[in-house]
Amino acid sequence: MDPFIRALIAVVGAERVLSDPADMAPYLTDWRGRYRGVARAVVCPESTGEVAAVVRLCAGHEVPIVPQGGNTGLCGGATPGADGEAIVLALGRLNRIRDIDADNNTIVVEAGCTLAAVQTAAVEAGRLFPLSLASEGSCTIGGNLSTNAGGVQVLRYGNTRELVLGLEAVLPDGRVWDGLRGLRKDNTGYDLKQLFIGAEGTLGVITAAVLKLYPAIHQRATAWVAVPDPVSAVHMLGLMRRHCGDRVTAFEIVGRSALDLVLAHIPGSRDPLLGRPEWSVLIELSDPAESADTRTLLEAALSHAVDEGLACDAVVANSLAQASALWALRENISEAQRLEGVSIKHDVSVPVSRIPDFLDRARQRLTQMWPDIRIVAFGHIGDGNLHYNLSKQAAEANAAFVGRTSEANRIVHDLVASLGGSISAEHGLGQLKRDEILRYKPAVEMELMRSIKRTLDPQGLMNPGKVLDVTVRAGRANEKI
Amino acid sequence: MDPFIRALIAVVGAERVLSDPADMAPYLTDWRGRYRGVARAVVCPESTGEVAAVVRLCAGHEVPIVPQGGNTGLCGGATPGADGEAIVLALGRLNRIRDIDADNNTIVVEAGCTLAAVQTAAVEAGRLFPLSLASEGSCTIGGNLSTNAGGVQVLRYGNTRELVLGLEAVLPDGRVWDGLRGLRKDNTGYDLKQLFIGAEGTLGVITAAVLKLYPAIHQRATAWVAVPDPVSAVHMLGLMRRHCGDRVTAFEIVGRSALDLVLAHIPGSRDPLLGRPEWSVLIELSDPAESADTRTLLEAALSHAVDEGLACDAVVANSLAQASALWALRENISEAQRLEGVSIKHDVSVPVSRIPDFLDRARQRLTQMWPDIRIVAFGHIGDGNLHYNLSKQAAEANAAFVGRTSEANRIVHDLVASLGGSISAEHGLGQLKRDEILRYKPAVEMELMRSIKRTLDPQGLMNPGKVLDVTVRAGRANEKI
Repeated sequence: MDPFIRALIAVVGAERVLSDPADMAPYLTDWRGRYRGVARAVVCPESTGEVAAVVRLCAGHEVPIVPQGGNTGLCGGATPGADGEAIVLALGRLNRIRDIDADNNTIVVEAGCTLAAVQTAAVEAGRLFPLSLASEGSCTIGGNLSTNAGGVQVLRYGNTRELVLGLEAVLPDGRVWDGLRGLRKDNTGYDLKQLFIGAEGTLGVITAAVLKLYPAIHQRATAWVAVPDPVSAVHMLGLMRRHCGDRVTAFEIVGRSALDLVLAHIPGSRDPLLGRPEWSVLIELSDPAESADTRTLLEAALSHAVDEGLACDAVVANSLAQASALWALRENISEAQRLEGVSIKHDVSVPVSRIPDFLDRARQRLTQMWPDIRIVAFGHIGDGNLHYNLSKQAAEANAAFVGRTSEANRIVHDLVASLGGSISAEHGLGQLKRDEILRYKPAVEMELMRSIKRTLDPQGLMNPGKVLDVTVRAGRANEKI
Repeated sequence: MDPFIRALIAVVGAERVLSDPADMAPYLTDWRGRYRGVARAVVCPESTGEVAAVVRLCAGHEVPIVPQGGNTGLCGGATPGADGEAIVLALGRLNRIRDIDADNNTIVVEAGCTLAAVQTAAVEAGRLFPLSLASEGSCTIGGNLSTNAGGVQVLRYGNTRELVLGLEAVLPDGRVWDGLRGLRKDNTGYDLKQLFIGAEGTLGVITAAVLKLYPAIHQRATAWVAVPDPVSAVHMLGLMRRHCGDRVTAFEIVGRSALDLVLAHIPGSRDPLLGRPEWSVLIELSDPAESADTRTLLEAALSHAVDEGLACDAVVANSLAQASALWALRENISEAQRLEGVSIKHDVSVPVSRIPDFLDRARQRLTQMWPDIRIVAFGHIGDGNLHYNLSKQAAEANAAFVGRTSEANRIVHDLVASLGGSISAEHGLGQLKRDEILRYKPAVEMELMRSIKRTLDPQGLMNPGKVLDVTVRAGRANEKI
C-alpha cells in the first residue's frame, strides 16, 4: 500500500479514506457536472484535530489539498484538477453545533454543518441565523464561509462575512489557529479571519466558526409587484426603505422571460398578475417585533409606490401558502432554466443605481450581435446583483450559440467593469473565473493577493488552480506573474 | 538643507512641510498628553498622488512614516517614537467628499474628512452615515477606518469595518491600490480592504473609502432606566429586541459612580431618577419609517420590562431637549473623570452574557487588593464592551494607586481573557497595548500577523512600534519573536 495512504488511514481510519474509484466519484465532479477531476484519495476527517493531522501529513508529502463541503459550488472550486496529485478533504463529518449562547446571540458551529442545520439550531434557541440560499439543505457552513455566500437576505443582514465573529482554521502547515471569539468589539490587531472568509480554501481549511444570531422573525409580508421598468424598481426600493425602514428583507427582480420559463416548466406555477408585465419585483418585509403589522405596512408602502408611478400592479400574499407560491416562482427559475436547456450564465453586480443602465446597454450590445438572443434576467436587485443568462429559443441555434461563450462574456463583463461592477457577485472565482478576473482586476491587487497566498501557503498546496494562479511547489518553482 | 526635506518640499510645497519645533509640536503628542515623540518633519499632502509620492520618497530614503488623522486616538498610535527618524504624515488635507450616490447608498470620501463632515454630507443627501463617536468633530474617517472605530450605534449598524465597501490606499512602496468599489456583493478574490481596516497605519496609508449610507432616521425615543443589576440589563436588552426589533440603536449601561462624577463636575447635570439606583441603562430606539411611533413602542417595552422585574424605574424623554440631557449624562463621563483626576482605564469586551460575571468577579478581586478602590464602569453593554476605570477618592492615595497600573491590568485583563474577551474592545493597540496583547494572543496568531506585516511592509517603515513589534529595517535585521 502507498505509504501516504497508509499514513492517512492511521489518522482517520480505513473507512474514511476513499480510494476506490466508485467511492470517490461523487467527490470528483461538481454538482452541475461541468468539472471532473482526479484525486489520490478522498479523506473524511471527523474533528479539527484530524484535519490538522491530515494537513500536516500532506504538507510533509507535498500533496495538494482540495477542501470540500456540500459540493454545491458553481465555479468548480471544490473539484480537483486533472493531475490526480491532490486529496479531496471532505469536511461533512465536522458537523457538531458546539455551543449556542442566546444572550450573546452567538452560535459556534463546525464547518461541516449544513446551513439548514445551523438555521434549525438557531430557531430552536429562539433566534434566527439569516443566511438563506437555495442549496441550504446540502451546502455546509464551511463552504458558505469560504465563498462568502450571499443569498436572498443580504439586503438586510449582509453577506456571510458580516455574520461571522470568529473562526477556527487549520493553516497549510497543519497548525490550528483558534480564533473562536464571540465578541462584537475586538480591536487587538489584524482581523485575520477576513483572509480566510471568501478565500475559497486557498489559504487554509476553515474548521469552525462563531456566527451571529438575530432576533427571531415573527411577522412577514410578501408581495409580487409589476413595475414599469428597472429604474422604477430601483426607486421603489428607496421608497420601501423610507416607509418600512429595516423591515425590507428581500427585493428580487424577475424579468418576463425568467417568469415565462417557470410557468412553462414548473407544474402548479401561476402568473400572479394579469397583463404579462415585462418586469416584476418580489418584495418581502419581516419584523422581529411581535406586535408588528407588516402586511398593513407593505400595503401602505405599495399604495405610495403606485401613486408615484413606480408600480403598476401588485398582489400581497394573504396566507403563508400564497407567500410560498410567490417565492417558488423566484426560487424555481434556476430549475426552469435547466429544464429548458443550456445557457451562458453570468452572476454580476453593479452599483444599484447603474442596474437600469446595465440592462439597457447589455441588451443593446447583445442583440446587435445576436438579434434572436433570449435574455433571462433576475436576481437581487437590492444588492445590485443580477443573474443574467443568455440562450436562444431554438435548440439547434442554442447549441451553436453557447459555443460563443467567450464573446458573450466579453460583452457582458466589459460592460459590468465599465460600470464599476463585479464579474462574480456571489459565486466566487473557483476554476471558472480564475483567468477571466485577470482582465478586470488592477495588477497591484493581483500582486497583493499573490503575496498573501505565498506568505500563508508557501508550498502552494491549498486548493491549487483556484481563485488565482500562483504555482510554487518546492522543487518546481513555476510561478506565474 | 537636508536633501530629504528638500525632496518633500518638491512634492507638497514648502508651507506643507513643517520642521520648526513650534509648528510640529501639536502633531508630536497625543491629545491626552500621554505620549510625546520626535519627528524629522510633519508633512501635509493634499491628494492621493502626493501621499504616494511622499511614501515613495520615504521608502527610498528608509524614513519611517507615522500616519495621522485628527490625532484623537487613545493608544498613542499616531504619535511618533523618540528616535526622531520618522515623519508624521498628516492627512487632514485629503478632505474632499468625492461622490454621493443616494440610489446606491454610498458615499466616497477622502481619509482626511472629519467624521462630522461625512455625517453632514449624508444628511444633506437624505441619508444617514451611522458611525458616531464623542470625537466626531475632530477625528478623521481615515483614523476611524485604521482603528475600526466603534461608538454608540454599533449595536445596530456595526463597527466601521461593517460600514466600508471599498478602499483606496497607498502601499508602503508608494504604489496606489484603487479598491474604491461601491458593491455590496463582490466575490472576486481576497477581501484586501479588511487588512488595512483596523491595521492602525502599519500596512499602508488609507487615502479614500467608499462607505455605506443608511435610510435617514425620522423617529427617535430615548429613556433612562434603573435596573436591579447588570444581569437584568442584559436580559432587558433581549426583551427590547423582541419587542422593538431593529429599532434598538443604543443600549448603554451607567454605573452609580460614573453618574455621580458627572453630577459632581458637569454644570447643569441632573439625576434623571430618584432613589440613586446602582445601575442605569440609557436606551435609544430609532426608526427610518416616517410613520413610526417609537415613543409608544419604547414605553410599551419598558412596561414589559418592569412587569418582568428587569427594570425598577424609567423616564422616557418627551422632548429633544430632554433626550439630549440624558445623552449628555452618558457623553460627559469621560470629561467628568478627567476633571476628577487620573484613573487606570480599561476598554474591554466580553461576550454580553458574561458581563455580569465580569463585573462581579472584577470587583471581588480588585477590592481584595485595594479595599478603598473606586470603580467607574459604564459603556456599550449591548456589544459586551465596558469602560472600566479605577481610582481612589483621596488624591494622595490615588497618586500612589495609579503607579500600580500593571498590577491592576493583570487582574482585569486576566479575568477578561478567561471569559473569552478582549483587552482592547474599541481603541486598538497603538503603543499602549502592543506588549500587553502578547500575554493574551495565541502565538500562531501573532506569527500570522507578523508574516502579513513583513509581506506588505518588508522595510518596516509603516508606523513602527505600533500594534506589533517587528523591527526589520534594511541593514538592521532586528526582528523580535
